[in-house]
Amino acid sequence: MLDSIPSFTRLVAELTKFPGIGRKTAARLAFFLLRQPSADAEALAGAILDLKRRTRFCSVCFHITEADPCSLCSDQTRETRLLCVVEEPQDLLAIERSHSFRGRYHVLHGALSPLDGIGPNNLKIAQLIERLNNEDIDEVLVATNFTVEGDATALYLARQIQPFGLRVTRLAYGIPMGSELEYVDEATVNRAIEGRREI
Amino acid sequence: MLDSIPSFTRLVAELTKFPGIGRKTAARLAFFLLRQPSADAEALAGAILDLKRRTRFCSVCFHITEADPCSLCSDQTRETRLLCVVEEPQDLLAIERSHSFRGRYHVLHGALSPLDGIGPNNLKIAQLIERLNNEDIDEVLVATNFTVEGDATALYLARQIQPFGLRVTRLAYGIPMGSELEYVDEATVNRAIEGRREI
Repeated sequence: MLDSIPSFTRLVAELTKFPGIGRKTAARLAFFLLRQPSADAEALAGAILDLKRRTRFCSVCFHITEADPCSLCSDQTRETRLLCVVEEPQDLLAIERSHSFRGRYHVLHGALSPLDGIGPNNLKIAQLIERLNNEDIDEVLVATNFTVEGDATALYLARQIQPFGLRVTRLAYGIPMGSELEYVDEATVNRAIEGRREI
Repeated sequence: MLDSIPSFTRLVAELTKFPGIGRKTAARLAFFLLRQPSADAEALAGAILDLKRRTRFCSVCFHITEADPCSLCSDQTRETRLLCVVEEPQDLLAIERSHSFRGRYHVLHGALSPLDGIGPNNLKIAQLIERLNNEDIDEVLVATNFTVEGDATALYLARQIQPFGLRVTRLAYGIPMGSELEYVDEATVNRAIEGRREI
């Protein structure tokens, strides 16, 4: 039935390329767009094109940016001797939102995952090592995700960084803020007990 | 932090205009788009613009279409004396998918909802009455949703159509296919008992 409306079918096909958007959601979005003024659709299409045209990855830290180097790398008030390594730009943003880190970043763009064919050469690891060679860094905070891939990446990085004699740290494991112990998984409780601190 | 990437912020703002898409989902979609080849982003932007440029509402039934009248209205093999009234184009598609209706359609583009300020003049009701005047129709199947608004709209339409002396029908209430009675709500069971049929 929708075959008679090829522009609709085409938009649905494009939208289903997004992760987490199936045919039904895509059709719902397309129907919503149909009801909106043309100006709104043009604004959306323009924003999509603009994002691709204007953004790139920072040549220093590989965060997304419009200016190169990015505002974080060129911010003179930030600590230069402390470097935080994250998997994705989203992770960098999560740390920035906590307002608790004033160093600089390095975005790997993924984590080691041999099963998916992602090895060290698919990540910005060589670029990280180069920064360690050229910049005056005291500590590398490895903030990869607390998943199998993230842990493996952290271990790999720790070994790579060892020859530099720097401090390599990892975010603390533990109970999330606001949690009720009853509902926290046992592995997390285990880590929280291991990492217990005096009060 | 994202303020330093205005094109990203702008796309997120555009995406959150969609129903059911919040800031987090919008950011996830934008990040996904960032990783896709430019050609993909251009295809999506093009599809959005195309949808608005090429589609309109059929001047007869108000379904979305690229050609006017739409393929359903111009299909000579369809029953012309049976007219199905639906709220939205999506509802028409749901009925078409069932392959059980061979008449024509009329899309109201909404349902009566006084609380939302939607009265008869906001729907394609005058156009429906005009069709009843001009076309040779025997039966109007009112397939509005089984909600308070859909029921009110069906009742209103039944009264408007009464002077024409046509048969006005409504889809059957009952237990959905594949249901386990245990999990069907009591109002539906109630209607299914009222509407019981001999086997």
